[in-house]
Amino acid sequence: MICPINRTHNPNLRSWVESANQKDTDFPIQNLPFGVFRPRNSNNSRIGVAIGDRILDLTACCQTGLLQELSQELQAACTAPRLNQLMAMGSRAASALRDRLSQLLRADAQNPPLESKILYSMSEAELLLPADIGDYTDFYASIFHATNVGKLFRPDNPLLPNYKYVPIAYHGRASSIVPSGTAIARPKGQRRSSGESVPSFGFSQHLDYELEVGFFIGNGNQLGHPISIDDAEEHIFGLCLVNDWSARDIQAWEYQPLGPFLSKSFATTISPWVVTLEALAPFRCASFQRPQEDPLPLPYLSSAHDTKLGGIDLTVEALVCSEQMRVMGMQPLRLSRASFKSMYWTLAQMLAHHSSNGCNLRSGDLLASGTVSGAEAGTQGCLLEITQRGSKLIQLPTGEVSSYLNDGDEIELRGYCEQEGYARVGFGECRGRILSTS
Amino acid sequence: MICPINRTHNPNLRSWVESANQKDTDFPIQNLPFGVFRPRNSNNSRIGVAIGDRILDLTACCQTGLLQELSQELQAACTAPRLNQLMAMGSRAASALRDRLSQLLRADAQNPPLESKILYSMSEAELLLPADIGDYTDFYASIFHATNVGKLFRPDNPLLPNYKYVPIAYHGRASSIVPSGTAIARPKGQRRSSGESVPSFGFSQHLDYELEVGFFIGNGNQLGHPISIDDAEEHIFGLCLVNDWSARDIQAWEYQPLGPFLSKSFATTISPWVVTLEALAPFRCASFQRPQEDPLPLPYLSSAHDTKLGGIDLTVEALVCSEQMRVMGMQPLRLSRASFKSMYWTLAQMLAHHSSNGCNLRSGDLLASGTVSGAEAGTQGCLLEITQRGSKLIQLPTGEVSSYLNDGDEIELRGYCEQEGYARVGFGECRGRILSTS
Repeated sequence: MICPINRTHNPNLRSWVESANQKDTDFPIQNLPFGVFRPRNSNNSRIGVAIGDRILDLTACCQTGLLQELSQELQAACTAPRLNQLMAMGSRAASALRDRLSQLLRADAQNPPLESKILYSMSEAELLLPADIGDYTDFYASIFHATNVGKLFRPDNPLLPNYKYVPIAYHGRASSIVPSGTAIARPKGQRRSSGESVPSFGFSQHLDYELEVGFFIGNGNQLGHPISIDDAEEHIFGLCLVNDWSARDIQAWEYQPLGPFLSKSFATTISPWVVTLEALAPFRCASFQRPQEDPLPLPYLSSAHDTKLGGIDLTVEALVCSEQMRVMGMQPLRLSRASFKSMYWTLAQMLAHHSSNGCNLRSGDLLASGTVSGAEAGTQGCLLEITQRGSKLIQLPTGEVSSYLNDGDEIELRGYCEQEGYARVGFGECRGRILSTS
Repeated sequence: MICPINRTHNPNLRSWVESANQKDTDFPIQNLPFGVFRPRNSNNSRIGVAIGDRILDLTACCQTGLLQELSQELQAACTAPRLNQLMAMGSRAASALRDRLSQLLRADAQNPPLESKILYSMSEAELLLPADIGDYTDFYASIFHATNVGKLFRPDNPLLPNYKYVPIAYHGRASSIVPSGTAIARPKGQRRSSGESVPSFGFSQHLDYELEVGFFIGNGNQLGHPISIDDAEEHIFGLCLVNDWSARDIQAWEYQPLGPFLSKSFATTISPWVVTLEALAPFRCASFQRPQEDPLPLPYLSSAHDTKLGGIDLTVEALVCSEQMRVMGMQPLRLSRASFKSMYWTLAQMLAHHSSNGCNLRSGDLLASGTVSGAEAGTQGCLLEITQRGSKLIQLPTGEVSSYLNDGDEIELRGYCEQEGYARVGFGECRGRILSTS
């Protein structure tokens, strides 16, 4: 079931952390996303909560007794070096913690605690991966993306016959998931140009980004025990942004018959703050409305509640800034803006499908949506689509033209929910810059 | 480089553990594979070494000072609850440990230690997964398997153009890897029969095994830093058997365009003992001899040393025992017997390819070969091949006939190296039984 709206969503709440009250912040008191950070000059990672331009240190909160009304188990989870333990405690525990943190950070909190003891400035901290990610799965849940990509390879038959029945996905590589800000080395690999009969090995010339939304498993399931669609959201801790970097030339040559492998496994960047499903409650919406001619989802993927509220009205964007643009002090150029509402499959459908064969999902596992694209121009979530497989060029404000990513290019993803009557909830940074190969 | 033959391989060595001196044991003193076990009536897992029908408890060895000549770091790794730390120390440390254990277990050891303090009977122990497996990758390295399977789907064009250039692989699911003996629940999923226009959801009717060889990463590599083919074997800790259970009906419907997903992720069974590359040194052989017309491997997959000694003369088998066969006390029926010599790609080529894009491999990661099949009848490593996609039936000694696995069927994999002048080195058990769905 979907989290209900409660007092933590009250749009009138303000925080004693002043920067959290600014209109354009990603992290107002109504958001309270969880992450893992390391204070500069420390070797210890700890759990924090983003509030304005600050990080609330949950270890310090526990040590100063500010969370003493919570269970011992929950306090222990808050002082762990990663979110996995907290994730494993399930949505009720996370909700109790959120409520307590909301009370603590309110402008009218009684005895507001000493800032210096429990808050870090974001600039004083390094943000790390929020969880030990056991397995990473990447879906293909945008029918617009699947159709756009399909058209490039099979103009007469863009969408395969299974698409409207199966939430298509593949296993990704967990080891190479990196937090925002990590530099990305251009991968080498085998690629065969269209005119060549044999492949060669070298740097990918068709490096791309993919604009995706990820979600972390909270409480997992035992092997052999599927999670029903009605229970699925209870097993989701929260969401982040995902840039599933892709080397299209390597992918085209390697992917038959077992799917993408080295074209993806060199790096995947995620945003470090995990926005809980509870924080997103005000922005839930109907799932994608299937055209009349489309089949209904099979019963194990079907739920009246999910149809009604399984979507999320979340806007996602991708922006590029080239080396030259940075030197000239230019703003990044937006390449993609799409809505997560337009996904053919909901989070609950992806999760229920994933576990339907008995596969065990573990706390901290990451599932991603696949590229978020829409039908209109400007909504395509990767360069493969935007440049029509490299045949069209993108023009940057410097006059540079390009079909894929160049050395020095930085891709930044953004995500935010905005709705009349509610505070804006944002996802923070998801950046990665392509290292020079020379 | 390949481990040299040394005194631990001496075929004349005998152990004071009598069962290790029997001719047909998988675990003579020349083998010494590592695993993780839990003594019955204990909650603590610990590292052990198989010797005959016993397990040498490395924690007890450390506690009684038997390993005191080894470094503190190595002793700490030996008393860890999983092999990851030992794996991370690299092949030199593992070799030093092996040498010490060989000395300790020799029939002529000075002051042979008290058996009761350091040995468990295998029947008193539960064998667990040897390592925390961060990522699992499954290759497709048998050209005979790829050709046999390709023929079933594309009779005119069985082998795709990339096969002889790219060691094809896909990311597998790490969470559902289980040790030998774990019962296997038949997965449910979407499948569409050939006569149907829409899929239905239910138990897989085409459940299959895959006879594979796996290898564990020892010392890993940093993201962005490929491992060269000449260094590759230094990063391999050891080998095991892998049964990559596959639901062929689910696979046929789901696998386009991103490869197998739920058809594989419900379970993968591995043998619990990790046979080190050093133990296999006497059985190294030339890699697969490519026919004249085949392309040479690209330079990053090419090494004179690997061509000369990159293969392993390892025989692998798969056997089935149905419920009725068990009731009637019958021996299992062999379905497959093939040689790992016949693989198109070597371990070093698979590993070098995997890291060639900069992907980081971590200690304890599992890479598997894909189904080991040969060209002749009886060498096909899965039922898909043996029954020609279910069109031919297998006859069991009870008179039962079947094209895929039935409830109650148990699949057992075996692996062993035998060569004149050397002690037999075996892999032990890799079993799994299909649970009843009724």
